[in-house]
Amino acid sequence: MPISDRLLLGPGPSNPYPEAVAALARPMLGHMDPEFIAIMDETMARLRTVFRTDNALTFPVSGTGSAGMEACFVNLVQAGDTVIVGVNGVFGERMCEVARRCGADVVRVDEEWGLPLDPQRLLDAQREHPEARLVAVVHAETSTGVENDVAPLAALRDTDTLLLVDTVTSLGGIPVEIDGWNVDAAYSGTQKCLGVPPGLSPVTFSPRAVERIQTRALPPQSWYLDVSLIANYVDGDSRVYHHTAPVSMVMSLHAALGALLDEGLEAAWARHRSVGTRLQASLPDLGFRLVVPDGHRLPELTTAWLPDDADDAALRTALLTTYGIEVGGGLGKFAGKAWRIGLMGHSARDRSVTTLLGALRELLG
Amino acid sequence: MPISDRLLLGPGPSNPYPEAVAALARPMLGHMDPEFIAIMDETMARLRTVFRTDNALTFPVSGTGSAGMEACFVNLVQAGDTVIVGVNGVFGERMCEVARRCGADVVRVDEEWGLPLDPQRLLDAQREHPEARLVAVVHAETSTGVENDVAPLAALRDTDTLLLVDTVTSLGGIPVEIDGWNVDAAYSGTQKCLGVPPGLSPVTFSPRAVERIQTRALPPQSWYLDVSLIANYVDGDSRVYHHTAPVSMVMSLHAALGALLDEGLEAAWARHRSVGTRLQASLPDLGFRLVVPDGHRLPELTTAWLPDDADDAALRTALLTTYGIEVGGGLGKFAGKAWRIGLMGHSARDRSVTTLLGALRELLG
Repeated sequence: MPISDRLLLGPGPSNPYPEAVAALARPMLGHMDPEFIAIMDETMARLRTVFRTDNALTFPVSGTGSAGMEACFVNLVQAGDTVIVGVNGVFGERMCEVARRCGADVVRVDEEWGLPLDPQRLLDAQREHPEARLVAVVHAETSTGVENDVAPLAALRDTDTLLLVDTVTSLGGIPVEIDGWNVDAAYSGTQKCLGVPPGLSPVTFSPRAVERIQTRALPPQSWYLDVSLIANYVDGDSRVYHHTAPVSMVMSLHAALGALLDEGLEAAWARHRSVGTRLQASLPDLGFRLVVPDGHRLPELTTAWLPDDADDAALRTALLTTYGIEVGGGLGKFAGKAWRIGLMGHSARDRSVTTLLGALRELLG
Repeated sequence: MPISDRLLLGPGPSNPYPEAVAALARPMLGHMDPEFIAIMDETMARLRTVFRTDNALTFPVSGTGSAGMEACFVNLVQAGDTVIVGVNGVFGERMCEVARRCGADVVRVDEEWGLPLDPQRLLDAQREHPEARLVAVVHAETSTGVENDVAPLAALRDTDTLLLVDTVTSLGGIPVEIDGWNVDAAYSGTQKCLGVPPGLSPVTFSPRAVERIQTRALPPQSWYLDVSLIANYVDGDSRVYHHTAPVSMVMSLHAALGALLDEGLEAAWARHRSVGTRLQASLPDLGFRLVVPDGHRLPELTTAWLPDDADDAALRTALLTTYGIEVGGGLGKFAGKAWRIGLMGHSARDRSVTTLLGALRELLG
């Protein structure tokens, strides 16, 4: 069975950093081995640096980004709680569904796909529902390429409502300021701007979120994602066994975070910004129209309407089979009409833009 | 930070097969890439061979063994259901806890740690509680080294009660006969006898279990582990995106299953049996006493009481630091008193037994 060597320019996974790939093949360690515990500790410290937080409870959930989303909801929400969710894409919708399965009463704040949520509307919804336990919003909507402005939601600090942010497609690619924005809980994914294979979901919980978890009336409905139990393994002197940590994946994350911090977080942000801007400036010349208004575009994930005469499936198949380039099709309402082009992590290189533009010119020319 | 090259003879992870390690570093593929879909399909086919089942719904859950346990319970159980659980170790206890968090009324059938459950007692409990929706039992108790006899539970086929079996520490190491024993659902882990790093949980659901899932009144409380949604991605023509599959880990599982089936499943069982029997015959000469009565011992996981004058922690530290050998301490009631010695997957070699016995002779002599 042949394996092609892809240039991954879809919505994730991106091409992992070489350091992340090499670390996958390091000799296996037991999950209670002091050497692995040291790697886990250092991984958590590096995650704090990347999340820009001092939160002690910062660790990789043993599942993909959606497991991290679920971990945040099942620990922070109890049946009957009111939860306010901003929805302008697939992942806001997913948050609503996950919250409902926790028994939450979901108050939606909807915005058209491709447009950013107005943070004031989320704050207004909280004023209408001061009993809400949580305001949840997606920072970087992977389905639309929109950046939702999180900073103004710091005002929630003066209420009893916690702020939960999805940073799956933003962490490591654009500024994420967990402490600066007073975010109480956030989850991410490894296979986007962090440049690691898919399989882990970094999460972080503020002291206020930890207090919320500790004062629950009932334990979370998920045992696997019960943060109080996991905390006894990842954080503390006890190191009580909960589940077997995915050792190779943690080693890979550890190595990629090392590479990212060696480059410098701000330098990585600038790299993502630079290549994304270049791609977005060039696509219209090829007949693509950008979906998202200027000022709200994610550099790491560009959505573009296809040229009028282009055949979505045929063009993506040609890119994949002739050039080994993967781009993403539209998700949900955008299926068949728009592309999602990712420039994330190790894939966020000028070379990637040059290669993609060259291939598209040849195919569309 | 130094990484030692361990001989992993604890309760898991074991040393992965070289083929599994090599596959981790294969070039990344998108989770919707036709080449990855083909690998996933073949992985599912190989899992069916190893589970000895024709069940269409057989796939790796994107989490560790405990995620597989939770996937089975959240999909098969609804709030208010009666569930019968056999408990003779930590993992039977864990099943009770997970079932309770699904809102189940749990009927326990307890047995002393280190002894096997009498399957007739589980059948009797079902006759007392014919309304029970599930009988759940651990095939290979990782905390005690006991094999619980599953075959007689096939009699549940004539009832409305499904049979759920934990095969985390048995699959690939000793005979597991999903169809032969009329098992309706089972989960496993990759880091034991399958010889893959930790991170995935193979699961399988019978047509009867699928029907149970399809006729639920409410969706499962977990979105991440909702088998009906995952089925649309792993199995079928639609290939609808649910969550991003952990691509590298699936490639690793695919490769290890290939190595296992090249060796032959029966040959792998015989290898585990042979090395385990040799270890169990040799340990008493060193002052260890086997915990489990003859006839109920797992070859792949041996529990032994420490020699009277031995210091658990000091001896394990010496094994680890001087010889690079990891063995497992006792779990729960056995902590500090017994060891758990694994001979699983790639670690199940005569060389491993020779190395461990030699090191113990030097340390205890």
